[in-house]
Amino acid sequence: MTATPADILITNGLVLTMDDRQQTFPAGAVAICADRIAAVGKADEIAAGKPGRVIDARGGIIMPGLVNTHTHAAMTLFRGLADDLPLMTWLNDHIFPAEAALDPHQVYGGALLACAEMIMSGTTTFCDMYLFEDAVARAAQKAGIRAVVGEVLFDFASPNYGSPAQGFAYTETLIKAYRGDPLITIAVEPHSPYLCAPAVLNQAFALAGQHGIPMVIHLAETAGEVATLRERYGRTPVEHLEALGVLAPNVLACHCVMLTEHDIELLKRRDVKVSHNPESNMKLASGVAPVPQLLDAGICVGLGTDGAASNNNLDLFLEMDTAAKLHKVHCLDPTVLDAGTVLRMTTIDGARALGLSERIGSLEPGKQADVIILDTRRPHLVPMYHPVSHLVYAARGSDVETAVINGRIVMEHGRILTFDVEQAMDEVNRIAIEMRSKLKARSSNPA
Amino acid sequence: MTATPADILITNGLVLTMDDRQQTFPAGAVAICADRIAAVGKADEIAAGKPGRVIDARGGIIMPGLVNTHTHAAMTLFRGLADDLPLMTWLNDHIFPAEAALDPHQVYGGALLACAEMIMSGTTTFCDMYLFEDAVARAAQKAGIRAVVGEVLFDFASPNYGSPAQGFAYTETLIKAYRGDPLITIAVEPHSPYLCAPAVLNQAFALAGQHGIPMVIHLAETAGEVATLRERYGRTPVEHLEALGVLAPNVLACHCVMLTEHDIELLKRRDVKVSHNPESNMKLASGVAPVPQLLDAGICVGLGTDGAASNNNLDLFLEMDTAAKLHKVHCLDPTVLDAGTVLRMTTIDGARALGLSERIGSLEPGKQADVIILDTRRPHLVPMYHPVSHLVYAARGSDVETAVINGRIVMEHGRILTFDVEQAMDEVNRIAIEMRSKLKARSSNPA
Repeated sequence: MTATPADILITNGLVLTMDDRQQTFPAGAVAICADRIAAVGKADEIAAGKPGRVIDARGGIIMPGLVNTHTHAAMTLFRGLADDLPLMTWLNDHIFPAEAALDPHQVYGGALLACAEMIMSGTTTFCDMYLFEDAVARAAQKAGIRAVVGEVLFDFASPNYGSPAQGFAYTETLIKAYRGDPLITIAVEPHSPYLCAPAVLNQAFALAGQHGIPMVIHLAETAGEVATLRERYGRTPVEHLEALGVLAPNVLACHCVMLTEHDIELLKRRDVKVSHNPESNMKLASGVAPVPQLLDAGICVGLGTDGAASNNNLDLFLEMDTAAKLHKVHCLDPTVLDAGTVLRMTTIDGARALGLSERIGSLEPGKQADVIILDTRRPHLVPMYHPVSHLVYAARGSDVETAVINGRIVMEHGRILTFDVEQAMDEVNRIAIEMRSKLKARSSNPA
Repeated sequence: MTATPADILITNGLVLTMDDRQQTFPAGAVAICADRIAAVGKADEIAAGKPGRVIDARGGIIMPGLVNTHTHAAMTLFRGLADDLPLMTWLNDHIFPAEAALDPHQVYGGALLACAEMIMSGTTTFCDMYLFEDAVARAAQKAGIRAVVGEVLFDFASPNYGSPAQGFAYTETLIKAYRGDPLITIAVEPHSPYLCAPAVLNQAFALAGQHGIPMVIHLAETAGEVATLRERYGRTPVEHLEALGVLAPNVLACHCVMLTEHDIELLKRRDVKVSHNPESNMKLASGVAPVPQLLDAGICVGLGTDGAASNNNLDLFLEMDTAAKLHKVHCLDPTVLDAGTVLRMTTIDGARALGLSERIGSLEPGKQADVIILDTRRPHLVPMYHPVSHLVYAARGSDVETAVINGRIVMEHGRILTFDVEQAMDEVNRIAIEMRSKLKARSSNPA
């Protein structure tokens, strides 16, 4: 009998801990003290004293909040702006022109809306790469969601910081500003080996190492990228990073669609983490990442939605379903990427991919209290033989009823408590109208 | 100005008609008289007299209810019972033993739960193949959902009707019993060319022709099926049906994963309709149906979820998203299966696949009133540049708020009005407990 005084006691649900022993507690409870998990176990063995607040899970599933290892949150602004197009048409004719005119206020608005969507679909941590990341960090703080954020760095001038050198200065400012923040971790984020010269990659890697923070990069996303890198450097994108000495355990490589066996060996040898983004890779027709092979090699793989412009939602439950199914049909083997494996990708392995597995990704005493509750009393979740199967193959983000992040209840009964979601939607609608008229003016007057 | 007295007036939404001209009405309305659509158009041009009931779509999307062209509704009973297994292990060790002990009461319970799930995710018509289809038809009537139902026929004895000959007698009984039913259409449903001898296929085809109703069959689902048919008859499954003379416009062929070019020519020549079931085909690792080629050939393709045991939900919005993305990555071409094409597959083309396009599948005066309303005031649906893109790439079934079928409001504010969903869930949970204990007893005592 543990006598644990708790600020919040979540009880009357099936607790999936996602810990190393894969413990589950059918009539379980989670006690939370301040920002931490104090106890996890059978409800009748957790004596929580007189908890400040009791949350009744009503027989649902209590589990760690999900981790989205790769997104561009503010791209909600371009959700559905252009689809079903070749990648370069999509980027050059739609996304890049729209992005060229962005300002931090718009990025804040788009990111805040993304935070609402992510929390409402069970995500409690996301890793972001974009412009004006200070605005993204502020949106995450406002929403009360955990985030790894990093300003995108490349060889040309940015509408945010100006020159590449200023990009590093901006990143250092972010690192200082958010040091010790309970929710925000800063990462160093060079866009990709095709948009970043070797010097930029080396400097980024050094900066990340100096501060012990992640370096996040798009890597081997398309056949075009591989062809470009081979032409420029005579190497694959992964080999190029290896040659530069910038592959290491704190590197998160996003996409990794086009990999050779040698690339996989290198990623394994350097303990690089991978973010898999199946829906974006499918929608943009980039290809199918060799995830079963990565997992066989023992590489840590998390799941990501990528931005809303290439998905077009940020629902990790749907992403899990797609990931599990895509690899089955791609390998013509129904046993690959079983539900348990996929669920680890969005919880403990996602946390590991971001360097946060000591703090989040499972329900264990001492970890930060990032917890979600799903309502399983819904026709599409009945009957329930295997909860893990339901989470991957049957559930949708809309089944999440309650979210606690860092010990704070940020959503209850499906309603965000930390900010005004109606206002956030209004604001993005306003920005979208503005954006559409600017884009129209531009296309009708190509000066 | 049309002066239309209406029983129900749905107004204040964006109306997507899905008619031949792809008409949309931004500030639109739909007037319903009895079971029919009386008028569709701009709200201020539809003078509905004093409608019996006004439904405010609150700026959402008003569109035809979705058509699920292939499912086994009662298999909700086995949702998540067994996943991530080779097809034959899944069938022989889990599904078939569970099905062998089924009774009509259980099928009714499973089908009623499926009806709740389908209505709640925007489906207003489904095509079913299973055992005890009278129970399925009764469940559909109870729920108020439109259905094409047919008892599965094969060469061996059925727990329902007994011998194959009795299967035909049972089907004829269904045809008589539901003749003229406003919601139920009976189909003749031989399981597949590998479980049905030529004589059964011929008799089924003749019976369907005699009554002018659809014949529904699983066709070319797996490589194993093709190998079996080649061995038995020296032909592909499609060629086999052609040789028997049982390919015709009233035939709905489900799955069609493994097709040769010649097969596609035959399907086109005979105007056979196809039901595409991407999520099931992915989960069971059957393969990717050549849908872009079928569409290029001008073949009518609808979308289906298949049963909940191989999906594991019946949400056609998710199925649309998966279909659009799967073929893009499979063809490495982001332009294939654009959103508009996929949306037609679940509306007008789905209706056409079931022989119901004169009655449903689009919002047009004179058609049966099968209408759904989506709430688009949700973070994951903001902003909205292109509604069709949202429906395919961003929406989930849970965004459907209201459903009208055959002029009757069956769901409002996300709540089913036609039956007690809580009771339906309790009943299936009870059946599942029973089933699990029977299966356990069987596996621990293999007499």
